[in-house]
Amino acid sequence: MPVGLPPSLLKLSEQLRRLPGAGPRSAERMALALVRSHNAWPKDLATAILEAQARVKLCPRCGFYAEGEELCDICRDTSRDSTTLCVVETANDVLPIERAGIYRGLYHCLGGKISPLDGIGPEHLRIGSLLERVESGVGEVIVALGNDVEGETTSIFLSGHLPTHLRISRLAQGLPMGGSIEIADSLTLGKAMENRLSLR
Amino acid sequence: MPVGLPPSLLKLSEQLRRLPGAGPRSAERMALALVRSHNAWPKDLATAILEAQARVKLCPRCGFYAEGEELCDICRDTSRDSTTLCVVETANDVLPIERAGIYRGLYHCLGGKISPLDGIGPEHLRIGSLLERVESGVGEVIVALGNDVEGETTSIFLSGHLPTHLRISRLAQGLPMGGSIEIADSLTLGKAMENRLSLR
Repeated sequence: MPVGLPPSLLKLSEQLRRLPGAGPRSAERMALALVRSHNAWPKDLATAILEAQARVKLCPRCGFYAEGEELCDICRDTSRDSTTLCVVETANDVLPIERAGIYRGLYHCLGGKISPLDGIGPEHLRIGSLLERVESGVGEVIVALGNDVEGETTSIFLSGHLPTHLRISRLAQGLPMGGSIEIADSLTLGKAMENRLSLR
Repeated sequence: MPVGLPPSLLKLSEQLRRLPGAGPRSAERMALALVRSHNAWPKDLATAILEAQARVKLCPRCGFYAEGEELCDICRDTSRDSTTLCVVETANDVLPIERAGIYRGLYHCLGGKISPLDGIGPEHLRIGSLLERVESGVGEVIVALGNDVEGETTSIFLSGHLPTHLRISRLAQGLPMGGSIEIADSLTLGKAMENRLSLR
């Protein structure tokens, strides 16, 4: 049902609709909140969008988000263990691992996964720079890629090409914490069974 | 857990956080989607925010959203019944009524409700212009204000001040459609009981 909103409000609503998680109704609510705001917020938001777009780049060393041409906060943090690298697909994958707060090493974002069907080979990913990076004092590489065919292919490729003196591990596969057996899918259950841990 | 995102990305995320319905995690997802976008969308969104803020005004006649100094789409629609006015609190209240698609009259947005405790009297609302508007051919006024004390006070004030020849009605109070008795609150149930309709 069209409700006769003015064109510039409809346009704003359409643009907001493209934000992840925004449906038509929530985009409209956001648009109304913006035009009804009597303070500097709408202008500040518009500026923040343009500035972030201009300034946010990927870290030249690890591929995580960084400002300008600088190294990212994680690479610059000298308190972190630089002998361990966690290999992830994209910069976004760093966030949940950092939030978990259990990893204190550095990262390497590949920028994708090997996928012959989509024409993505190792040469399209940041694998060359990974091989260079491990030459300088790295002792362990943790491969943290998704459990799909491409993640699998990429993990196998990496374990075949990384120097043999390195420890290489991958994330455990099994039941998620708090996940019940009842709702687990068969592939996950199969892996959890296969990789079962001895209790005594 | 701080995750070392660059400052301009954090700032964008904070600004997005102020959108209605955006939590910290969803604001972050939006910010990441914006900086990762390789097309014109972020710039278009920033422009749409600024343009909507500059152009969207309230209709000089009814107080609904309009572009520039023009009357709103609803007031300009000559196919609508200009003898009926629906009085609502804010411009936002017009949207759900329009979507319901059952009302073909015009609106009058008061811009608030009478609230002596907050120092809001009739003179602070668009009540003067309502009284002027009803002089020219209006036959019925439907009062569609919220079911709170202020809505009640405002409804009573209006019915006492609108010309006596006008039909004045208010929205029915009762159980929402699809709402079960089990989860209805006691005030609603009381109203539904009091205003019960005869079946035969």
